[in-house]
Amino acid sequence: MPNPFAFRLTATDGYARTGEIATPHGVVRTPAFMPVGTQAAIKGVHHDDVRESGADILLANTYHLMLRPSAERVAALGGLHSFMRWPHPILTDSGGFQVMSLSALRKVAEEGVTFRSHLDGAMIALTPERAIAVQILLGSDIAMQLDECVRLPAERSEIERAMQLSLRWAERCKRAFENAAAGQALFGIVQGGDDQNLREASARALAAIGFDGYALGGLAVGETQDVMLNVVGETAPILPVDKPRYLMGVGTPADILEAIARGIDMFDCVLPTRNGRHGLAFTRFGPINIKNAHHAEDARPLDAESRCPAARDFSRAYLHHLFRAGEALGGTLLSIVNLYYYQDVMAEARAAITAGRFADYLAQSHAQWAAKSDRQES
Amino acid sequence: MPNPFAFRLTATDGYARTGEIATPHGVVRTPAFMPVGTQAAIKGVHHDDVRESGADILLANTYHLMLRPSAERVAALGGLHSFMRWPHPILTDSGGFQVMSLSALRKVAEEGVTFRSHLDGAMIALTPERAIAVQILLGSDIAMQLDECVRLPAERSEIERAMQLSLRWAERCKRAFENAAAGQALFGIVQGGDDQNLREASARALAAIGFDGYALGGLAVGETQDVMLNVVGETAPILPVDKPRYLMGVGTPADILEAIARGIDMFDCVLPTRNGRHGLAFTRFGPINIKNAHHAEDARPLDAESRCPAARDFSRAYLHHLFRAGEALGGTLLSIVNLYYYQDVMAEARAAITAGRFADYLAQSHAQWAAKSDRQES
Repeated sequence: MPNPFAFRLTATDGYARTGEIATPHGVVRTPAFMPVGTQAAIKGVHHDDVRESGADILLANTYHLMLRPSAERVAALGGLHSFMRWPHPILTDSGGFQVMSLSALRKVAEEGVTFRSHLDGAMIALTPERAIAVQILLGSDIAMQLDECVRLPAERSEIERAMQLSLRWAERCKRAFENAAAGQALFGIVQGGDDQNLREASARALAAIGFDGYALGGLAVGETQDVMLNVVGETAPILPVDKPRYLMGVGTPADILEAIARGIDMFDCVLPTRNGRHGLAFTRFGPINIKNAHHAEDARPLDAESRCPAARDFSRAYLHHLFRAGEALGGTLLSIVNLYYYQDVMAEARAAITAGRFADYLAQSHAQWAAKSDRQES
Repeated sequence: MPNPFAFRLTATDGYARTGEIATPHGVVRTPAFMPVGTQAAIKGVHHDDVRESGADILLANTYHLMLRPSAERVAALGGLHSFMRWPHPILTDSGGFQVMSLSALRKVAEEGVTFRSHLDGAMIALTPERAIAVQILLGSDIAMQLDECVRLPAERSEIERAMQLSLRWAERCKRAFENAAAGQALFGIVQGGDDQNLREASARALAAIGFDGYALGGLAVGETQDVMLNVVGETAPILPVDKPRYLMGVGTPADILEAIARGIDMFDCVLPTRNGRHGLAFTRFGPINIKNAHHAEDARPLDAESRCPAARDFSRAYLHHLFRAGEALGGTLLSIVNLYYYQDVMAEARAAITAGRFADYLAQSHAQWAAKSDRQES
């Protein structure tokens, strides 16, 4: 019998927390950054490199996998861990967010959402029960409730309608999850847009239903960083203290550290790989756009002291050449650089919280990024 | 002072030979397969994987590198080994073949070839002297003479004209190479199309000039395998026995073993990586087209007994999914599978020659590829 899901707080520093999430496939150290393996693969990066970067857990997208190769096929092949050969923890989202963002035609009703597949145009129904059944078939360690995510800015009435619908779906997901395998966990998702009264109502209602963890959804969807951090700062403290808190789809290293300062434990984002493919490296010195001409003859590595071989061993001139020449290896190497850097930031954040100096670490990080940034060039 | 270039025969079995090429950057075991790093990168594959596959030496393309980032820039960055961070042997071609195949507008004259860059339309002159100067700047361990390669079939008069011109360019390259760094080697290229009299005249004239090794050029350019192997079989034995023999741009594993049987020591080809990107895996059981639907639920790896982690650890179903989903990781993994398989074939060939059983190995390989091939499906 696999280990059950469990969360243990190990240190706090202000609102910032460190902890450990035990799952059937291993322990996740928090604060944790989850690289995004949309279609059961981290774009352009070998699993071994993802693991060596320090990732304890991956995120995979239910929407994509239910369409291709299908949850039933993944289950027949032994589940997602076996299928993609990632024997470590995996979180799956519910598919709801991609239905909203990728499907041209969709209809939200009480029962669930009906949408046209972006692959073959087939009409597909995704109910709370189906979202859970799919995630049980995939066999992820952490499943997410189906929710409706509203793009900001939006009318309060629209935000409230979606928040209330998401709460009713949360209850149905909880019931459907009684069929889950031993050890699997289910997180609820707080909605409510940028309205703090709605956020608080959502958070309290979800806590009353009772989940293994709580996510903040409906952020990083068009609002400013200030708005996002205000919502995070006012919502995180009213979530159950003994459960992990997950800020979905966020963000830059600065976003993440600011959210950690406000009590968030888990993050996922496509930025390290998407920006890497486009030539943008995240480094201790701020972002570096390797395609800029002034790197063409620069024999220095991105970061001679990095733990990441790609950041340490290849010159900026060579990386620049790979992008100019259209060699996919360039995007792969910068994606790896970024995945390492994100994990380094998480490890440093954990160490700083443990040592009770997180506020100093946050201020130093901002100063270092600003001092040596060449963001202006990009 | 680096080791000088040297070739030592270690065993023969019929016409097949094993040997060792000493270069300033290490030893190349022959028969050797050189993965192609056109633009100072193996497409989609990290250098470390190329090395771990068993490659002793890479090929890089002078044509591409002289256009971007330029030989002068590579030299300023410490030469090609340092630039691309491949501290092992490198062979560069002369650029002549790509001028013929990639440049829309070109003019061949006694002095050299003038062509329009496929990148920016600039008119560029490539003379024998410039081809050598570029390769000296790149700092490759083995440089190739500039030659003119004629696509087959062609008129005998045209083949002869190009062969004679290539011989005059060979002499000029040899003179220009007096400026080479210590240890660098220069190979001559036998031309003559499918005309054995011309091939023989070319081979004898090149041997009289004297090179560190001899290549067969102008093959794998449209002729049948029979024609190619006939030329190889009749030309290789008249090349100097104490120098390496290199069959340029060849080929499939079957082509390579047949050419080894005829006395060839070195090969290069884009097939392992190009076919890998397109979903074709070379295996002990013959080629496998992973995109075919019947792999979609096949939990078996490509080859459970392979030395290659990608061939051993991922299911055919997962690799199939990566290609169907358009994930670049699929092409990367199959390229790695193919690079390992090519190196396995070379290692097995060397062992068979050493043991005096190369003919048996050749026959067994053909039988194994034919018995379990799913070539018909592709």
